[in-house]
Amino acid sequence: MAISQGPESVLQAGVARREERVQSPAELRGQIRAGDFRRTTAGHCPAYHQANLVVLPAAGAAEFAAFCSRNPKPCPVLEILPPGEYAPTRCARDADLRTDLPGYRVYREGRLAEKRPDLRQIWGDDFVSFLLGCSFTFEHALAEAGLPLRHVEQGTTVPMFKSSIQCLPAGSSQGPMVVTFRPMPAERLSDVLTLSARYPLAHGSPVHVGDPAEIGIHDLGRPDYGDPVQLRPGEVPVFWACGVTPQAVALKSAPELMITHEPGCMFVTDLPRELS
Amino acid sequence: MAISQGPESVLQAGVARREERVQSPAELRGQIRAGDFRRTTAGHCPAYHQANLVVLPAAGAAEFAAFCSRNPKPCPVLEILPPGEYAPTRCARDADLRTDLPGYRVYREGRLAEKRPDLRQIWGDDFVSFLLGCSFTFEHALAEAGLPLRHVEQGTTVPMFKSSIQCLPAGSSQGPMVVTFRPMPAERLSDVLTLSARYPLAHGSPVHVGDPAEIGIHDLGRPDYGDPVQLRPGEVPVFWACGVTPQAVALKSAPELMITHEPGCMFVTDLPRELS
Repeated sequence: MAISQGPESVLQAGVARREERVQSPAELRGQIRAGDFRRTTAGHCPAYHQANLVVLPAAGAAEFAAFCSRNPKPCPVLEILPPGEYAPTRCARDADLRTDLPGYRVYREGRLAEKRPDLRQIWGDDFVSFLLGCSFTFEHALAEAGLPLRHVEQGTTVPMFKSSIQCLPAGSSQGPMVVTFRPMPAERLSDVLTLSARYPLAHGSPVHVGDPAEIGIHDLGRPDYGDPVQLRPGEVPVFWACGVTPQAVALKSAPELMITHEPGCMFVTDLPRELS
Repeated sequence: MAISQGPESVLQAGVARREERVQSPAELRGQIRAGDFRRTTAGHCPAYHQANLVVLPAAGAAEFAAFCSRNPKPCPVLEILPPGEYAPTRCARDADLRTDLPGYRVYREGRLAEKRPDLRQIWGDDFVSFLLGCSFTFEHALAEAGLPLRHVEQGTTVPMFKSSIQCLPAGSSQGPMVVTFRPMPAERLSDVLTLSARYPLAHGSPVHVGDPAEIGIHDLGRPDYGDPVQLRPGEVPVFWACGVTPQAVALKSAPELMITHEPGCMFVTDLPRELS
């Protein structure tokens, strides 16, 4: 076959390689904005930070900012936007938070009121947006180092549990830390800790390793959110702080309005993953 | 002399050592609260983060939080407190931000209105406090590695300059980045960069190395704040983002009220320096 390849085949291979090149965050956001991408951003743009979105009216924003600053493992702040602004000039100068995520959830008085593909019709001058780091970022680093991610292998959502670890309260914002669970090979635990610690803006090092009961988790088969994964012989349970924590805490106080991304459908930033 | 030392001398030496032991942040804050310590905190509690304090009424807090999040080199957030709270539960659970700094400045409509030894008489239910990382933290690490700090040798205040580097604006909060200048031995530049990069919550790695004119500084002998230091043969100019930046920016918009620490008189936290 190789012998029969002429210049045209070489050229075609070159074209194919160009077509397969890695998509930039701006290109992916453009697809999303055009309505051509309405699914999880997991696995996309692995060299860049992805972010959880929380939008609150300005009246509750200072307390939420305080809660995040006191709990940097579950709530690592990538950017807070001033009231009314929707261009995240630090994370992606040309982006629009109202249109550039694959889906949104609108909560009113603490209850899911609707799911929307964009926020332009309901945007308010006093909306304060928070972009918080996401575990997709360190998962890319673990996967590149050959570490298994069971929920990715299964094509399911990472299992999440309400732990007995209490967040530091801020005013009326308080509650347990939600953690993600990933089984990891015992003989590579050191790599797991070292690699994830490199990404403090993506939850950083684990909050617990070993016996789930020590952090109030009594049945690994029944997560509070997401889908169960199996712990196999030779593996240890590893738990990381989870970006669902601030949403769960904010919803407990039943704010008049709160908007988040659709789970798994994150904001893909221009911030290199290696930036911390 | 050694031969003549009996058990009593040994005991006395032991007592002396105990008296000379390193003071804890809680002990220093206790002295400050009692009115027995009214000077710079530089050089104290070198293993712990020290912090700049900015207090603003809640109405302007979300925009200021946004400004800090967009400019993490000059404005590294250690903690934001919810409206009205003065116990920084992340940075020092038992502290009181109204009494535990050696001095305060109160600005009204953008002008210095008064200096106070404590804030209890003027505290408001809507005051939002920001604790931002301080360069004292990385200076301790540089000094321990044998690197010279000219302003410390001279017993003067570090020279600060308004640079031509523009901060990312947030609403009406905008302005140039203020930078500190430290001459460093050219042959140890790599150590300087590596060490300071370890402390992202204390301004991290330098924002500029070399020709001051490249960042709009035309006379190293005339700083905008602080005192001049000499650049000697074999040294390179190194510039770090400075915690004066957010104060300068906040004052430009002449807020009705803003309270800060007295320069050099920082809040000494219980957060280990190595925490980032």
